[in-house]
Amino acid sequence: MNDFETISTFADIQTLIGSMPGPDQDSFARWQAREPQLTKPAGSLGRLEEISGFLSAWQGRHPPRLDAVRARVYAGNHGVTALGVSAFPAAVTVQMVENFKTGGAAINQLCRTFGVELGVEALELDRPTADFTKGPAMSEAECVAAMRQGMAAAEPGLDLLILGEMGIGNTTSAAAICHGLFGGEAADWTGRGTGVDDHHLKIKIDVVHRGVAANRSADPLAILAGLGGRELAAMTGAILAARHRRIPVLLDGYVCCAAAAVLFAADPKGLDHCMVGHTSVEPGHRRLLAGIGKRALLDMDMRLGEASGAALAVGLMRAAVACHTGMATFAQAGVSDKH
Amino acid sequence: MNDFETISTFADIQTLIGSMPGPDQDSFARWQAREPQLTKPAGSLGRLEEISGFLSAWQGRHPPRLDAVRARVYAGNHGVTALGVSAFPAAVTVQMVENFKTGGAAINQLCRTFGVELGVEALELDRPTADFTKGPAMSEAECVAAMRQGMAAAEPGLDLLILGEMGIGNTTSAAAICHGLFGGEAADWTGRGTGVDDHHLKIKIDVVHRGVAANRSADPLAILAGLGGRELAAMTGAILAARHRRIPVLLDGYVCCAAAAVLFAADPKGLDHCMVGHTSVEPGHRRLLAGIGKRALLDMDMRLGEASGAALAVGLMRAAVACHTGMATFAQAGVSDKH
Repeated sequence: MNDFETISTFADIQTLIGSMPGPDQDSFARWQAREPQLTKPAGSLGRLEEISGFLSAWQGRHPPRLDAVRARVYAGNHGVTALGVSAFPAAVTVQMVENFKTGGAAINQLCRTFGVELGVEALELDRPTADFTKGPAMSEAECVAAMRQGMAAAEPGLDLLILGEMGIGNTTSAAAICHGLFGGEAADWTGRGTGVDDHHLKIKIDVVHRGVAANRSADPLAILAGLGGRELAAMTGAILAARHRRIPVLLDGYVCCAAAAVLFAADPKGLDHCMVGHTSVEPGHRRLLAGIGKRALLDMDMRLGEASGAALAVGLMRAAVACHTGMATFAQAGVSDKH
Repeated sequence: MNDFETISTFADIQTLIGSMPGPDQDSFARWQAREPQLTKPAGSLGRLEEISGFLSAWQGRHPPRLDAVRARVYAGNHGVTALGVSAFPAAVTVQMVENFKTGGAAINQLCRTFGVELGVEALELDRPTADFTKGPAMSEAECVAAMRQGMAAAEPGLDLLILGEMGIGNTTSAAAICHGLFGGEAADWTGRGTGVDDHHLKIKIDVVHRGVAANRSADPLAILAGLGGRELAAMTGAILAARHRRIPVLLDGYVCCAAAAVLFAADPKGLDHCMVGHTSVEPGHRRLLAGIGKRALLDMDMRLGEASGAALAVGLMRAAVACHTGMATFAQAGVSDKH
């Protein structure tokens, strides 16, 4: 199941989805045995406890560790940008990839701050996906190729994989995928992205509406291909491969979670090895988090993408591991337990 | 105004409160000039932008820096513990101080994770404050002595001061101070602290009610002395002194913010140099944050004290400074700005 290089059809992807391993109960039990002994009132570290338990269960290791932490940022270009859905020109995608490579973007500073190794992959930027209001953004073969490229991110030995994206026009793609997967109205899922004005927001909503109408399917993978974004498909592939490699995943904002939602739609347990770094101010994200049953770790009014909200949450994960592994027990410290 | 060693009466404290400096407008203007040039959609880093602007304004320096970051944890004992308001025995206060000193507590791991120097000060643990249901917990002299000890934390040259506490029984003191300052009912402000059961929660609410009835005053400093906690008075003093030294302050949870609220009640601008690290699950904290007009940075379901929620938020502050100071501008990176 781990030879992702041979994956070439949606049927192959379905086989991977049908064979996802669950959490490691033994490692989680060892986490559960240690946590109540630590010198604090039971439960008083709240979500820090949840994080260290999650990492134990999904790394299949106790104590959990965060030595090898990698962020992958995928970049793609979108046919729908020609319709006027973004406040920035499409040329910004490749310019920002260069900025990532020379260390000038927000994600570079965040990765440096929290000890995360950053990898950036530009996915055929000179060949944007097709305009999805007129048919599928990607063929099955194109979609699977992007997914397979994402799968390579799940390198054996990683302790945590952080996913993010850059792609002018890709909140339009994310909104369309969410609308396609979860229903509702196009306007429910469509926000201002990088900051479009009222006129262009109306255009964007119309594009999302027409895209979903042109790409209806009961198959989440067909929706992913139809409403596209190679960078989204890469993230979906990376999440699925990470599950098979026992690598916990930290998701970013709206676009990243839309890519993840494809797996959730295919199997409601498909994101159990993922936590969400932050809630974006892009309004569809809050609705999407409710849809996939996740509560993000941070709510910092961010809306940048680039894995920035996820990278920021790595600090919380490092703190969680430090507390679980480094704190003294009541017995070690000679501290009295409850009355 | 900076010679805090001579402070000996509430009148001296009032003089300090009446002479608090404001933010540095010049440093803030330099922050404002740089931030929109950075390679991201305007405002897309949300509260990270707010943090770097806040640090510039209150450090009086641009770019802001976080080289010298210090946490001070104050420990105190409380007469009201004899009434059965805590799930842990009072002896735990001194045991936990020892645990802090030997590096076994949560705060030790958090400070290590985020590059924070930890200092712990035990405030006359063998001399608990008086039972405040029968009169003031502290005399004016005792309260001022504790405040003065806290003031010493605001050492010139610090870039950020983080405050926290340890003291069995001190959520009772915090609840009483909030009830005394903001009104409402005792039950509005009283929670389970370290985890008291229903029976002891009722006792705790009654203790808070009787404490406020016995210590009514229009003077916030008299409320602080009356409902006490030396560790609370130390934090109030530290916050006030930090303002005069141009040191931004990061507040922790319910007990820390209750101490801060004394300053807010004395002057609504008194906490402008403070951010709040996290929202505690202790229910009074959310109400208190609304009362002092603060939105915490984190909401991690924590309720430990020890400055733990504030120390955790240092990661966010480091990220904010890294982004503001390290990102490339549109011009430097050759990235196109908005259409």
